[in-house]
Amino acid sequence: MRFIIFGAGALGSLFGALLSMHHDVLLVGRKKHMEVIKEKGLKIEGITEGVFYLETEWDGSEYDIVILTTKAYDTEKAAREILKKFGKMPVLSLQNGLRNEEMLAEIIGNEYVIGGVTSHGATFLEYGRIYHAGIGETIIGEIDGKITDRIKNIAEAFNKCGIETKISRNIKNEIWRKAVVNAAINGLTALLKCKNGFLLENRNAEILLEKICRECIKVARAEGIEIGEKIIDKTKEIAEKTADNISSMLQDLLKGKKTEIEEINGEFVRIARRHGMEAYINEFLTLAIKAMESVRHLG
Amino acid sequence: MRFIIFGAGALGSLFGALLSMHHDVLLVGRKKHMEVIKEKGLKIEGITEGVFYLETEWDGSEYDIVILTTKAYDTEKAAREILKKFGKMPVLSLQNGLRNEEMLAEIIGNEYVIGGVTSHGATFLEYGRIYHAGIGETIIGEIDGKITDRIKNIAEAFNKCGIETKISRNIKNEIWRKAVVNAAINGLTALLKCKNGFLLENRNAEILLEKICRECIKVARAEGIEIGEKIIDKTKEIAEKTADNISSMLQDLLKGKKTEIEEINGEFVRIARRHGMEAYINEFLTLAIKAMESVRHLG
Repeated sequence: MRFIIFGAGALGSLFGALLSMHHDVLLVGRKKHMEVIKEKGLKIEGITEGVFYLETEWDGSEYDIVILTTKAYDTEKAAREILKKFGKMPVLSLQNGLRNEEMLAEIIGNEYVIGGVTSHGATFLEYGRIYHAGIGETIIGEIDGKITDRIKNIAEAFNKCGIETKISRNIKNEIWRKAVVNAAINGLTALLKCKNGFLLENRNAEILLEKICRECIKVARAEGIEIGEKIIDKTKEIAEKTADNISSMLQDLLKGKKTEIEEINGEFVRIARRHGMEAYINEFLTLAIKAMESVRHLG
Repeated sequence: MRFIIFGAGALGSLFGALLSMHHDVLLVGRKKHMEVIKEKGLKIEGITEGVFYLETEWDGSEYDIVILTTKAYDTEKAAREILKKFGKMPVLSLQNGLRNEEMLAEIIGNEYVIGGVTSHGATFLEYGRIYHAGIGETIIGEIDGKITDRIKNIAEAFNKCGIETKISRNIKNEIWRKAVVNAAINGLTALLKCKNGFLLENRNAEILLEKICRECIKVARAEGIEIGEKIIDKTKEIAEKTADNISSMLQDLLKGKKTEIEEINGEFVRIARRHGMEAYINEFLTLAIKAMESVRHLG
């Protein structure tokens, strides 16, 4: 298959590298990152090791699908760019947050949108150099739950390259589940400036993790999405598996970059309000992280 | 008058120094701090400048009153020590938190307890050296609101030394008002690791400040204490006046010391529960700061 990775940061570059083993891949990302990859190849370290050579400039030829891996706050802009540059074509979102599919559908059209979540962890080391920090399942699915040819093709293409991928008939549920895990782990580790594992080492942090999950479960239920209390244990399991990792949100905060707090925790707050509820904890967390994005830290 | 300062940290040492200008003062504090003061005197810098010579060892003589300036989590222990060492005598609490007077009354007896709040800001620079960072009003009062001779004497003694002091007929209200201000400014600056002034520079931080104040006002009301919405502007005014200060709670956190979060924000949570309410924001803040006390920070 022929893939365009749109927004090739840490995760997108990793997927591009892995897919390039058996497929044609065009990376679209930040200019400096692309320049280094064009010149020296894309270096992956950690769980995957190697240098990968991928296209970084579009030659006008046709591609089968766009994999969207931008930050969630850039989805709308990315969707417009994709539409303008490549025209209407299938877009698989592997992003964080709850509103990507909706925004993509509005701009590119319902039938072109494919949902997805992945548990792979990747860290941007420097231009042209990515660290593959964690391995996990990838789940993709059509928004209407149908098992189409294209979804089967993508899953097959992913699996062929060692990206363990399943097809879900309820991808929306998977996206919400991932958002709950992210709301708790990303939100809290950014707030406390700690590694993921600390959330289990410290009882107060663990209580906060549980409280965030519970509030998210309630909001999901109001939206008609049943997640269930088991997500709390699942979240803890993920925090344990990734104990030494610095979450993407904390990475952003430490680099002085904008975080996805609005698109993850903030989204739970907005959806709660739409149902006449308050999501106090997610609201507090969202405001605090937004404030921390601008603070000059004292320690 | 003859004062014992019990728990002579930053604020207690400052009060001791100021009072020593016209009164006898015995400082009781950490051994190393006392040793340096005994040897070289107590050096005050900032708003007040000078070296002050005070007693650091009790010669068995009688004193009129104890001024208690320990951290609020040490009040019970301090009350027992005072009782054991000096016997039943008047104790004026100038501490943070909501439960000091109650604990003192339980251990030393109702009639010996005097309430107080102060807006002076002091920072512990090193043993024997204190920075006088901010100046403000001190308010004292009998728990039952009576204007007694002893309260008049203390106020007069304080004022004589430049510690601007008023007597309140409703000191409990003043203590609660100060706790609301502390819950917002101390709690938030510790969480965000910012100077006090940032709470007004950043709109998200300002919203959090308002939310904390509002929740505290509700809890106070449930307890029969009317504080009023004006405390929000008052809190902002204090944050502005002390814009360059690092709050005592953040100082503690940065030094790796235990904070007073349980005795300030945590107390609002407990009192809320007693009235069948939830204080979500103060609870979240309390758990987060407790967790931060143990985290090894990444940035």
